[in-house]
Amino acid sequence: MRKPRGAEPGGAGPERQRTREAADPARRPVRASLLLARRPVLRSSPNMAKVSSPTETERCIESLIAVFQRHAGRDGNNCKLSKPEFLIFMNTELGAFTMNQKDPGVLDRMMKKLDLDSDGQLDFQEFLNLIGGLALACHDSFIKSTSSQK
Amino acid sequence: MRKPRGAEPGGAGPERQRTREAADPARRPVRASLLLARRPVLRSSPNMAKVSSPTETERCIESLIAVFQRHAGRDGNNCKLSKPEFLIFMNTELGAFTMNQKDPGVLDRMMKKLDLDSDGQLDFQEFLNLIGGLALACHDSFIKSTSSQK
Repeated sequence: MRKPRGAEPGGAGPERQRTREAADPARRPVRASLLLARRPVLRSSPNMAKVSSPTETERCIESLIAVFQRHAGRDGNNCKLSKPEFLIFMNTELGAFTMNQKDPGVLDRMMKKLDLDSDGQLDFQEFLNLIGGLALACHDSFIKSTSSQK
Repeated sequence: MRKPRGAEPGGAGPERQRTREAADPARRPVRASLLLARRPVLRSSPNMAKVSSPTETERCIESLIAVFQRHAGRDGNNCKLSKPEFLIFMNTELGAFTMNQKDPGVLDRMMKKLDLDSDGQLDFQEFLNLIGGLALACHDSFIKSTSSQK
């Protein structure tokens, strides 16, 4: 199977990836989505119209899809994150979280809990539940820390 | 109420914000979270240890919290996104999506649907449901477009 466009093996940084995308418009898979299609910015000359930069939120959505695609596509099926792909994702993208866990079985249990349809893999919705759960825990922690500083 | 640390009124870009964060470590609220606490990178000299850069996924989680805080904090309560704050968020952060909607009542209906506890505001979990829904729709659209290209 063809490697998904824009996927960067080996975890290239977003700045580097963005430079490559600028050089090669074909590397922009997510931005082509109709939902978040960037509107052209009208400039003084009609021939100078260019597409506006993504906002912080749009960039987040694009990144989440790109990261999932990059990891899920390792085995050729970019719609599902297999168990080995999940472990690589957790150890590379969320290594700080993973290394803080004292229980060696935590990733196995997380995978089972996230795998709502019990097919042994995570689809994009199940992956988003993981990201959402972590974001919520971080947000709660942030709110508690700022409240205690008052 | 004190403006949350790291919040940037007026939608400063992430690069600019990151530069400011580098200059002022107090502007890094989310990175202080225990969950994603960055591990120090050991360098040749013990005195040169520095904190590793966030991964793409960690940056996404941090950005989602920062964007929510920036918009929810406009009225002084940074735990909830009021209806006016939601509208500003949709028109600035997701302006491309909002402008593509032909039905002028779509944002009202979205707010009602997202507001699961019907308190007239969106908490961070409800906000994440919005982001997750959009990401899922974009991902589905991306998968369909790549399938049709084969």
